[in-house]
Amino acid sequence: MSQAIKSIEDSTLSVINEHKCFGGTLGYYKHAADTTNCDMQFTVFIPEQAKTAPVPVLYYLSGLTCTEDNFTTKAGAYRMAAELGIAIIAPDTSPRGDDVPDDDFWDFGKGAGFYLDATQEPWSTHYNMYSYVTKELPALLQDNFPLDLNRQSIFGHSMGGHGALTIYLKNPSLYKSVSAFSPIVAPMQVDWGQKAFGRYLGDDQNSWKDYDATELLRRKNISGLPTILIDQGTADTFLENYLKPELFTAACQETGQDLTLRMQDGYDHSYFFIQSFIEDHIKHHAKYLGV
Amino acid sequence: MSQAIKSIEDSTLSVINEHKCFGGTLGYYKHAADTTNCDMQFTVFIPEQAKTAPVPVLYYLSGLTCTEDNFTTKAGAYRMAAELGIAIIAPDTSPRGDDVPDDDFWDFGKGAGFYLDATQEPWSTHYNMYSYVTKELPALLQDNFPLDLNRQSIFGHSMGGHGALTIYLKNPSLYKSVSAFSPIVAPMQVDWGQKAFGRYLGDDQNSWKDYDATELLRRKNISGLPTILIDQGTADTFLENYLKPELFTAACQETGQDLTLRMQDGYDHSYFFIQSFIEDHIKHHAKYLGV
Repeated sequence: MSQAIKSIEDSTLSVINEHKCFGGTLGYYKHAADTTNCDMQFTVFIPEQAKTAPVPVLYYLSGLTCTEDNFTTKAGAYRMAAELGIAIIAPDTSPRGDDVPDDDFWDFGKGAGFYLDATQEPWSTHYNMYSYVTKELPALLQDNFPLDLNRQSIFGHSMGGHGALTIYLKNPSLYKSVSAFSPIVAPMQVDWGQKAFGRYLGDDQNSWKDYDATELLRRKNISGLPTILIDQGTADTFLENYLKPELFTAACQETGQDLTLRMQDGYDHSYFFIQSFIEDHIKHHAKYLGV
Repeated sequence: MSQAIKSIEDSTLSVINEHKCFGGTLGYYKHAADTTNCDMQFTVFIPEQAKTAPVPVLYYLSGLTCTEDNFTTKAGAYRMAAELGIAIIAPDTSPRGDDVPDDDFWDFGKGAGFYLDATQEPWSTHYNMYSYVTKELPALLQDNFPLDLNRQSIFGHSMGGHGALTIYLKNPSLYKSVSAFSPIVAPMQVDWGQKAFGRYLGDDQNSWKDYDATELLRRKNISGLPTILIDQGTADTFLENYLKPELFTAACQETGQDLTLRMQDGYDHSYFFIQSFIEDHIKHHAKYLGV
């Protein structure tokens, strides 16, 4: 008997396990996803406040090599989510399964979906994490959990920070706010993005711009959205060549978008960094989620 | 260059990695241990306060199958340790390495050292976690980290709760306080303990009593120590047959030892339970550590 799901009549969703956590319920779930044509897993934290009324939703997108498990076990997020009454959803980072094409590189293929919809074979059948995160997963959540999907926000780490920023900038009316830890902000200008976009999206770099936060901000001349919060460790070994927050800062300055970029002295790319500032991020979103 | 170690001239200790965390340093370390005759790993969290004066020490002992990593990544302990200025040390649960004898059982051998000094071959060469935790590790810490080892406390989970309780009750002058999550409190009366003690300590059950918290309390007629805090989830699948907190409660009542046993409704045996109450435990110890 699920502690978190409203009804288990929806047979598309199965409970892997559930744990009481800070008075609420943390669960691992699985379903057959249409967008990615495979079984997908995700975790949901439902705070105790959901017993009386639907609660707002905060999505967390993980980085390269991660599954739904890394954030769930390591980020220390649920204490503050429980206190403020916010649900947190952590999806996987790519399609999974024996049928899903993969690659020997650690930063491409499984564990590296880059939160886009691939257009190139053999990737386009399964690698549709953009549609999965923005459409299919919310619909499934709406049907099964006591959530208020009119109040959604999104954040993430590294490749997941890229995912959060691009998904937000493409759909500013769907989400109340965005934040990121050490995000990839300009994938078209760094090795990680060039490699992934070339194979998922093809050679036409115009199609890449739809998944590059810095390009999206400039192209759409977006401004006036709520403050974007980014934390970046100065001891992060990926900072100089792969993350380049200065490129996003420049775009925000050009367009007039409000950005709080905090360079955190001595912190690296790990979850020991994320847990140190997770409370600030949850409180940032709480403000815009109206809690 | 280590951020946490006072001097790296002591070549017996090597840094695996270090991460800034909540203003302090979380590090993974390794050394060749004499008591266990093998390389041992452990983690140390040193809060920022150690820059001005040595800080008190809280040991955390993990449960069956764990290494030093489980608590370190999953317990969410460092936020409150950083706030209060307490170092946390998490050792491994057993000797390790190709030379160390093991067993096919998940609850015996590697990952299941039971925090005792084995007397029986082939276990006695390496399985000496009691001496490791109470003597060798503190001496190594004293030499290398900015710690005040006149202020030590100890806690743990499951088999590590057994370890914390027995180590404390055998050495009440070495530690200021003890607490436990879902501890094994009467190993002589449950399958886990009978199996492990029979093989590590031999057939003479008198020798087992030295590592059974309930027996130690009764035999030594211990009372008047600081309140012992135990949290136990009611949905813990090991509760009825393996943990039996009522046996320890009865011994405390008989001897007059003050015990706070909190039966936490609906919580299981996982780190989602531990993280929910870790703050209470750290504050409990802080009181006795004088911070």
